Amino acid sequence: MKLLRVGTAGAERPALLDRDGVLRDLSAIVPDIDGALLSDASALDRVRAAAGAGVLPALDPTGLRIGPPVARIGKVVCIGLNYHDHAAETGQAVPAEPVVFLKAADTVVGPDDTVLVPRASRKTDWEVELAVVIGRTARYVESAEAALAHVAGYAVAHDVSEREFQTERGGTWDKGKNCETFNPLGPWLVTADEVPDPQALSLRLWVNGELKQDGSTADQIFPVAEVVRYVSQFMTLHPGDVINTGTPAGVAMGQPEPKPFLRAGDVVELEVEGLGRQRQELKDA
Amino acid sequence: MKLLRVGTAGAERPALLDRDGVLRDLSAIVPDIDGALLSDASALDRVRAAAGAGVLPALDPTGLRIGPPVARIGKVVCIGLNYHDHAAETGQAVPAEPVVFLKAADTVVGPDDTVLVPRASRKTDWEVELAVVIGRTARYVESAEAALAHVAGYAVAHDVSEREFQTERGGTWDKGKNCETFNPLGPWLVTADEVPDPQALSLRLWVNGELKQDGSTADQIFPVAEVVRYVSQFMTLHPGDVINTGTPAGVAMGQPEPKPFLRAGDVVELEVEGLGRQRQELKDA
Repeated sequence: MKLLRVGTAGAERPALLDRDGVLRDLSAIVPDIDGALLSDASALDRVRAAAGAGVLPALDPTGLRIGPPVARIGKVVCIGLNYHDHAAETGQAVPAEPVVFLKAADTVVGPDDTVLVPRASRKTDWEVELAVVIGRTARYVESAEAALAHVAGYAVAHDVSEREFQTERGGTWDKGKNCETFNPLGPWLVTADEVPDPQALSLRLWVNGELKQDGSTADQIFPVAEVVRYVSQFMTLHPGDVINTGTPAGVAMGQPEPKPFLRAGDVVELEVEGLGRQRQELKDA
Repeated sequence: MKLLRVGTAGAERPALLDRDGVLRDLSAIVPDIDGALLSDASALDRVRAAAGAGVLPALDPTGLRIGPPVARIGKVVCIGLNYHDHAAETGQAVPAEPVVFLKAADTVVGPDDTVLVPRASRKTDWEVELAVVIGRTARYVESAEAALAHVAGYAVAHDVSEREFQTERGGTWDKGKNCETFNPLGPWLVTADEVPDPQALSLRLWVNGELKQDGSTADQIFPVAEVVRYVSQFMTLHPGDVINTGTPAGVAMGQPEPKPFLRAGDVVELEVEGLGRQRQELKDA
């Protein structure tokens, strides 16, 4: 299923995009799309049955904003340097084990919402990523084989980053990863049963119409299953948590000088195969 | 006021510790102690008036668990190396600007809850800290002078840390800071009007009865007001967000070999002047 949330920010309602591309209202069936729903197999079955029976009212998509596909996200765990070609372009060695950092859930916005360039920013950069949404509590998961059972679904994430804040202002990367609006998510949460192989998805990103990133999750250093297993050794993953699994080559930071960092007026578009497309306009904070 | 939340985990009710040390039930006055309450001056005035009028029912504290004093925390922002003596004991230079990292809100537990030593841990360490609770959205705050108006109150935080995960496993510090139960908070949120100078508070921590940390917020490299101003340049602080402002010298990492890292059975007690005392027993995860 393609689950999503539509409406003004903070007042989204749950919806479903059916097999014919028709937007359907889910608000009579479930209160919202969140960790509680994603961990409740019988509620998901009710949604699936209602969609199959064709009883869900259609919604007019005209002018309707799409919000993040998950409400009440607990945390966003991010994996850094997880594609061979991206590690190379940043001049860093392939990590021996996953590089982990956090984004606060309040950085998450809808897939087509405005992205704000921070006031003192000179190096705002893009990163298309495959996001994993957790559906079952993952704590000390013993094997990569067992890990995928904890995944509710997948979505497109834009892990917007400010490189000077991230690497030139002291301390950890978090300072350059948690600026407001820095994590567009969606348009949909595609349930895991419809993504048979998360390691065979193409990812693309354009800036002002020019293709900048063109990769595949096949190039991930640590695949999704290993990422879930690994992270669960250090922290507990709860239903509704999100993991951004890293970005392929082609970010501004990896280009020759003068590097084409983002500025107000730029338009970024990105997509992951089967998971939909995002479009953001940049504005000054 | 000393605001707190009492009851079993996930089902706490709001309460107040009055000037005579009597625990009072607030559940008839406010639904909970959270960002919505802390940003609502008239609701806080209602609580203050009810406390002054002596109309709040007393609660029997016998056997009553104390939870974290804030519900629905959005994020926990942490400042590293923020005391001169702690920077020295870790062998690091005094930072030129605040070192910032994140803990997920799901690490927060009550002040006397069990702390779990992660399964593969060999270097679980303690850190007593002054926590700042945000009461008003802080976004690009222009001066340190203006910053304290965004603070709702203060609490004791235990920023539990796994040093091998934090510094020897690649990537950022977050891997060693986000293990489950790693952020006991409380017992109380003391409202800012009762903490006239956050830079004049003593902090102490004992392990198995032995004093390990004995510092003062007077030794902070970046004081609370500057921390709030600084962080707000990089991320938006929302009501109910928490900032852990760093720890003084005396952590296990700073001791001679063999360093006395925490193990199951150890008991940690900690306090910040005027903000109460915590006590945790360590157990294996």
